[in-house]
Amino acid sequence: MILSEAIEKLNELEKAAYALGHAQSILFVDGDTVAPKNSWKGRGKALSYVGELMYRQLVNPETGEVLETILQHKDETDEVTFRRAEVMKESYDDLHILPMEEFVAYQELTNESSAVWHDAKEKSDWNMFAPYLEKLIAARRRFASLKDPAKPAYDILLDQYEKGAVMADLDPFFRTLREELSPVIREVAAREKPVPAFMKGPWPIAQQRIFSDKLMVLEGLDPLNCAIGETEHPFTGGPNKWDIRITTHYHEEDPFSSMYSVIHEGGHALYEMDVRDDLQFTGLAGGVTMGVHESQSRFYENIIGRSRAFCAPLLKILKEVFPEQMKGVTEEELYSAINLSKPSLIRTEADELTYSLHVMIRYELEKAMIAGNLKVADIPGEWNRLYKDVLGVDVPDNRRGCLQDSHWSTGYIGYFPSYALGSAYGVQMLRQMEKTVDVWGTVAKGDLSPVTTWLTENIHQYGALKKPQDLLPAAMGGPLDAAVYTDYLKKKFSELYGL
Amino acid sequence: MILSEAIEKLNELEKAAYALGHAQSILFVDGDTVAPKNSWKGRGKALSYVGELMYRQLVNPETGEVLETILQHKDETDEVTFRRAEVMKESYDDLHILPMEEFVAYQELTNESSAVWHDAKEKSDWNMFAPYLEKLIAARRRFASLKDPAKPAYDILLDQYEKGAVMADLDPFFRTLREELSPVIREVAAREKPVPAFMKGPWPIAQQRIFSDKLMVLEGLDPLNCAIGETEHPFTGGPNKWDIRITTHYHEEDPFSSMYSVIHEGGHALYEMDVRDDLQFTGLAGGVTMGVHESQSRFYENIIGRSRAFCAPLLKILKEVFPEQMKGVTEEELYSAINLSKPSLIRTEADELTYSLHVMIRYELEKAMIAGNLKVADIPGEWNRLYKDVLGVDVPDNRRGCLQDSHWSTGYIGYFPSYALGSAYGVQMLRQMEKTVDVWGTVAKGDLSPVTTWLTENIHQYGALKKPQDLLPAAMGGPLDAAVYTDYLKKKFSELYGL
Repeated sequence: MILSEAIEKLNELEKAAYALGHAQSILFVDGDTVAPKNSWKGRGKALSYVGELMYRQLVNPETGEVLETILQHKDETDEVTFRRAEVMKESYDDLHILPMEEFVAYQELTNESSAVWHDAKEKSDWNMFAPYLEKLIAARRRFASLKDPAKPAYDILLDQYEKGAVMADLDPFFRTLREELSPVIREVAAREKPVPAFMKGPWPIAQQRIFSDKLMVLEGLDPLNCAIGETEHPFTGGPNKWDIRITTHYHEEDPFSSMYSVIHEGGHALYEMDVRDDLQFTGLAGGVTMGVHESQSRFYENIIGRSRAFCAPLLKILKEVFPEQMKGVTEEELYSAINLSKPSLIRTEADELTYSLHVMIRYELEKAMIAGNLKVADIPGEWNRLYKDVLGVDVPDNRRGCLQDSHWSTGYIGYFPSYALGSAYGVQMLRQMEKTVDVWGTVAKGDLSPVTTWLTENIHQYGALKKPQDLLPAAMGGPLDAAVYTDYLKKKFSELYGL
Repeated sequence: MILSEAIEKLNELEKAAYALGHAQSILFVDGDTVAPKNSWKGRGKALSYVGELMYRQLVNPETGEVLETILQHKDETDEVTFRRAEVMKESYDDLHILPMEEFVAYQELTNESSAVWHDAKEKSDWNMFAPYLEKLIAARRRFASLKDPAKPAYDILLDQYEKGAVMADLDPFFRTLREELSPVIREVAAREKPVPAFMKGPWPIAQQRIFSDKLMVLEGLDPLNCAIGETEHPFTGGPNKWDIRITTHYHEEDPFSSMYSVIHEGGHALYEMDVRDDLQFTGLAGGVTMGVHESQSRFYENIIGRSRAFCAPLLKILKEVFPEQMKGVTEEELYSAINLSKPSLIRTEADELTYSLHVMIRYELEKAMIAGNLKVADIPGEWNRLYKDVLGVDVPDNRRGCLQDSHWSTGYIGYFPSYALGSAYGVQMLRQMEKTVDVWGTVAKGDLSPVTTWLTENIHQYGALKKPQDLLPAAMGGPLDAAVYTDYLKKKFSELYGL
């Protein structure tokens, strides 16, 4: 095959992949937001067929030849086209080792197990979900062994979400987090602050919806390109930079839960929305890894959204929407309220200081279950033991324990570390950003655009064009260093709690 | 090809058609309800590719052979399978005469012209839309001539929406409507009633949303299978009986506009939701023709929804949701208010008496434009002349004139007559239903289920299994008879206006 023909075929393949991916993306968002409950059956049929089409497009000898042809002509191929072939090759390598029946069966398994998990969580019933998790673990282990039987299976899974991540690096990373943060967590817990009176609300959901719209404007999310929906579990979806969807979940008794969901998902959205136009509709339009994606969402959520400076514009819009509830509240009081720290049960609601230890617990469990050292039946006990050991928390039931997260139910084993890595990346990016941007001065004025411009220049614009090993050190001013992250947390919470 | 192989292939083809059709359906609903404005570009790319896939599945020699094989073995094939092949053959016949480039270009044309029409309507600017309509007319004429150059093109278009409909039947049908109804319309107009004071509202949209939910329950729409959204132009969509979407549009100054949209679209929804389970995911799952579909929507909207009996349960939920606005209003006052009749500008807002003459005007215009007797540039003048002549109404601008309907912008030329035919079918069905069902007694009690059960038994359950020429006379007690429809209207409005 000659190069020009291969490039032509790559264009065709990406056109198909975009269209099918677009359909998957919208069906998923629609299914989780506004679709009637019984729609799952027809959606499953549609998604399973679309998945089959995607598989058939990618997994055939011609695609292999197309990709090889381009990859063998690096010098004659422009950077974008070459990288598009490279990224598609990664999916090709993952999929072509897998017989189609297994691929389809796996799609159906995750579809079903996800539905079962929802029920199991509601009923707090691990036994309902356990047989599905067993199948999911077996499938992920099998895929990993097909890919490279010589490597530890969990390293192969980690690599799918965070290119290059391996246990040999993550073990010391999490060890540092635990060693450095545990003493602070204990001291902070000893100085527990009461929940301030104003937080009692009530916070009517109709007002919270208006508040979300204002928050999105403050964060810089253009409503022409980004819509907000409501789901049980917030997420970001959408097929291209002009069509991003974020979701949130409103709790009448607490406006901050939804607020931080909006800011967090808004961070994911900004990443996707700021990718270069010429990368749209190609395999390079999304984020480069999940760790980098989470670095952006958690940057806006925590580094900006829970900063002292952000309390000025935040209090302003809070008072606009909730004048009664926020009457007399000062920026200082707000800053303290949004940074109350206390070991707790639910990862997504955890404060910034304790958050990454929730992640570490999942990392330890996943390592053990993939290595075959932890039976599915024993996960609840081990989960509860670790929560007690690491965070000093008693888990009252599986709903608030090992059934709280959706990830495993969709086969996402190996994803969790991305959250902690992303949080750490973000702090190192902040340190670089501060060298040229008056971060806190501009945030205090309610203008996040210099922050987003810096992130766009250094991260967002590239989508998946730059490899993470090139992108990250440049944006972080060096390799990952857990101490930069723990120093940031120790300083922030020592000040907040007068340690 | 042997029969069993052909049936196997038909199953595969329908599986693909279902999945791709499901994606199209959800992308369309999502795009019109919650998607951000700039999403059109990516959606266009996705839909164009999905359309191409559908075309390629259907238009190939093997599909022709599959369908021929089944159609030649009627005796050895069960009724459902045979009819599935027959219905697919209709699509095949429409499409295989069309080169793929023309098919794709037409998809793109309707996508673009639909967007242009939205703008043109807002700006009341016919010249913006005219070049697109010219292309659409040329395309529809070409497709008709490819299908059968010997037949009048408009007859071929009519047949696509209402199987068997031809001008030779529709001309006298509409002539009867005009001759019989015009004198009544004139007399009613001479006795114009004032709009009752209570209708001034205001009618906050938040309350109207709650009202919609109650209306849906009253109509018998299960929210587990049917969701409601908000769009500029109400419609019914969704891919199967367990996943139906209706939409409405709220006007703060008038609750009845949205109310009748909900009831009308709910009628379409009930038809789809009551089709037999074993026909789901096949080509027989939808309604059999657009005329039959409109007969159901307009049955619930008008025959039930604007009946004296329905005012009892309707007033009850109106008073629950709008206690202030509806204070002291009696059933008689409500009945009079929802049946105010007056020649007006907008078809979708027209009263039951004048409605079908709005349709007739479009029918006359379409006949002329497809026959080449009416230039696109002359449509506004001719539209306005007909509105004056037929309804005695002066059209102030094109927004409220020839740009009001979306149909032409999506290539739907030949659809309009279905509304009038459907209205007439509905009255003939009512006359049959009344023989065995205490329609008004049960409706007055707020129980629509005997009505829906009758319609399910006689119409809904079959989907497209029975041919319209078999289905309709059985449900209507004979062939179409315009006089049954005009008698119903004359009697109702004579009583209402004391003629």
